[in-house]
Amino acid sequence: MGEMRVLSFEANSKIGKEIQLQGWMHLRRDHGKLIFLDLRDRAGIIQLVVNPKTSEEAHKVASELRSEDVIEVAGTVKKRPAGTINKDLKTGEIEIEVASIKIISKAATLPLDMGAEDLNLELPTLLDHRSLTLRHPQVSSIFKVQEAIVDSFRETAKKLDCTEIFVPTLASGASEGGADVFEVDYYGHKAYLTQSPQLYKQMLVPVFERVYTISKAYRAEPSVTTRHLSENTQMDCEFGFVDFDQLLNLLEEVASGILKADKTAKIPVKIPRLSLSEAFEILKREAQDDLSPKDEIGLSDWALDKHGSDLLTIHRFPTKKRAFYTMPDPEEPKHSLSYDILFRGLEIASGSQRINNYEQLIETMEKRGLDPKNFGMYLQAFKYGMPPEGGFSFGLERITMKAMGLSNIREASLFPRDMERVDERFSKVEVKK
Amino acid sequence: MGEMRVLSFEANSKIGKEIQLQGWMHLRRDHGKLIFLDLRDRAGIIQLVVNPKTSEEAHKVASELRSEDVIEVAGTVKKRPAGTINKDLKTGEIEIEVASIKIISKAATLPLDMGAEDLNLELPTLLDHRSLTLRHPQVSSIFKVQEAIVDSFRETAKKLDCTEIFVPTLASGASEGGADVFEVDYYGHKAYLTQSPQLYKQMLVPVFERVYTISKAYRAEPSVTTRHLSENTQMDCEFGFVDFDQLLNLLEEVASGILKADKTAKIPVKIPRLSLSEAFEILKREAQDDLSPKDEIGLSDWALDKHGSDLLTIHRFPTKKRAFYTMPDPEEPKHSLSYDILFRGLEIASGSQRINNYEQLIETMEKRGLDPKNFGMYLQAFKYGMPPEGGFSFGLERITMKAMGLSNIREASLFPRDMERVDERFSKVEVKK
Repeated sequence: MGEMRVLSFEANSKIGKEIQLQGWMHLRRDHGKLIFLDLRDRAGIIQLVVNPKTSEEAHKVASELRSEDVIEVAGTVKKRPAGTINKDLKTGEIEIEVASIKIISKAATLPLDMGAEDLNLELPTLLDHRSLTLRHPQVSSIFKVQEAIVDSFRETAKKLDCTEIFVPTLASGASEGGADVFEVDYYGHKAYLTQSPQLYKQMLVPVFERVYTISKAYRAEPSVTTRHLSENTQMDCEFGFVDFDQLLNLLEEVASGILKADKTAKIPVKIPRLSLSEAFEILKREAQDDLSPKDEIGLSDWALDKHGSDLLTIHRFPTKKRAFYTMPDPEEPKHSLSYDILFRGLEIASGSQRINNYEQLIETMEKRGLDPKNFGMYLQAFKYGMPPEGGFSFGLERITMKAMGLSNIREASLFPRDMERVDERFSKVEVKK
Repeated sequence: MGEMRVLSFEANSKIGKEIQLQGWMHLRRDHGKLIFLDLRDRAGIIQLVVNPKTSEEAHKVASELRSEDVIEVAGTVKKRPAGTINKDLKTGEIEIEVASIKIISKAATLPLDMGAEDLNLELPTLLDHRSLTLRHPQVSSIFKVQEAIVDSFRETAKKLDCTEIFVPTLASGASEGGADVFEVDYYGHKAYLTQSPQLYKQMLVPVFERVYTISKAYRAEPSVTTRHLSENTQMDCEFGFVDFDQLLNLLEEVASGILKADKTAKIPVKIPRLSLSEAFEILKREAQDDLSPKDEIGLSDWALDKHGSDLLTIHRFPTKKRAFYTMPDPEEPKHSLSYDILFRGLEIASGSQRINNYEQLIETMEKRGLDPKNFGMYLQAFKYGMPPEGGFSFGLERITMKAMGLSNIREASLFPRDMERVDERFSKVEVKK
């Protein structure tokens, strides 16, 4: 079907020609006898003018069109009259004089106004109608930026000679030893959804030295915040034969590479770095074990103000606050060779140098009450020669949220998962116990 | 660390120079007083020569090295003597005259011979020691090809103007209505791991028209075959505003694009196509509802013999054998507008034109005993204007298996999941009930 179809922006170069368009009826405005339609296709929006003098039949069809009806339109590309040019549209200098309209698929009456420039919905409404609201250009544009973020990440990881890996999300133990894991009935055995690809990417350092993966991570956190999802997408790297300084450089190189997708991001050549204790000095308060959301905002304000940077690296978090595989600083073991990176007031990545010595790793597990027997395949990688190594993990939805200036991370996930809904709200659906 | 390090193949251009290498001691051969070491890094293997006349200390270290010890080596790049050139190695014309060896990380004694050119292990042994066996060049090369397959897929999907999407793997219902789903305890509610990204990619057709995704798919199939995994990786596309012929063309364009990663694959410009009934005529047997593994092999032999093609498209499977969303052929509703593609005797992709009419979709669900109430968010996409659409899904591990000539799909997954193991065999570990 649609062998002659052109996309909306392609019409720009076809003035005077007859073309065929396909898409959704985004908005209708009746001006006396003229009907103006906005047609939406994957390339954008284009204005159609339906004049009964051109085609009475097309005018009749147009007068009965509903928002989101799928249509095929034939018509002639015309320059818009002076004074009616719309600079916000890629097709703002043209319009289509419609000769015929065919309805391909009818839409039911919409439960909300999809034609408004600003969708302006409360979050629950936005999500209750997710299959519909995602179509709005304001919403879909979020996920075009998300796609660009992932592309930039991949490009940077490849440039750093990382091999792409595909690791499992079903594991026999909780990957980081925490309690917030989802349990799966696995052929009568207990299995868990991985909280991150962490252990597997480490196991692949002796195979490829440098690896990257884009994967799902699951956290059964029994709380609702604007910054957490139960299922999120992570962009991970892990590097062998590196020390802590090299890891900090790699972290910042990848962060800067990713944010090429956000043209408005201020990324200096040298990203400011603070140890956690230096960070609390700047915040002018007593050192704590971790940063609060408010601290992160304060520090990002400082980085932008003093260094013109939307990114800020914080390093050397307390060893006890980080996962078991984190390397303590040999010179001061209470502090760890760990780091976070903040972007516009939010932690978007986290990582560390790892313990690569087999005996030290087992000893650390035991000290933390983890049973090495539950980490057999992981420990195998360390038993047979693991170089110094480390890495980091970026949260895709968090970066998207901050790049787009969204107030809730749920808006940065196509179909967000949290304790209140899986597509539909639990309060609305039967509890299937 | 290793600021001066070069990768093994980089030594080729440094004859006469002193270099530093880092990697794993892959193999040691003692020839009288000379010790030959194969060092493995992410770029390949390089030969080291340790002569006590050059360095007594290095010779002492070398004589005690064990396979998989992580080492740092300094030495001089030399041309190999005539007659000792190894054409199978990227570094086969050079060797390193070792001045010093530093052990970075010791390996325990290996449970198997990792230095052999052919690893030659039974599958259970290969998987029991997966963190170790993956390091063998014969095994790791499988996953370099896998990476290339994914890259080719992405490149082809982007060329077709598909937007990359990230869709959930936790859903409130079984995506295709089958019984073989993994159940998850989701905050006290029942949720399921998706059997495919199918429903979500369809829901995104009205948002982006053309989408692609690389995602995990889960099948709790209670059987062990050489072609099934419980967790696999799928490469999916979905297209709006297409008819069946266009879908067949797109399927074959993407298949051909993917297989650019396999230089040995025979892919003609025109991929042979057969309807299922034509396929059974060629097999010279009575038409069945589906192809058996043996049928797939027979048909692929035919395609290679008659058309010089490693790919073969089969279309129009019986409607009752395909998922509910499959469009029946309007001219013969017992047959569906569906297709599989075979590669060297194995189905590697499947897909169809979809039912895009809301009422027809609900009617089909009800006929099949599915409750439309369990598909609320999915149906929303169809209620508000869905164009004719369709797509397909490629199995990454299956393509990898056939590209590498493997006999079991488990060898094509870094850490395969099946009913018998999650990394470690269930028979070996305590059943955690």
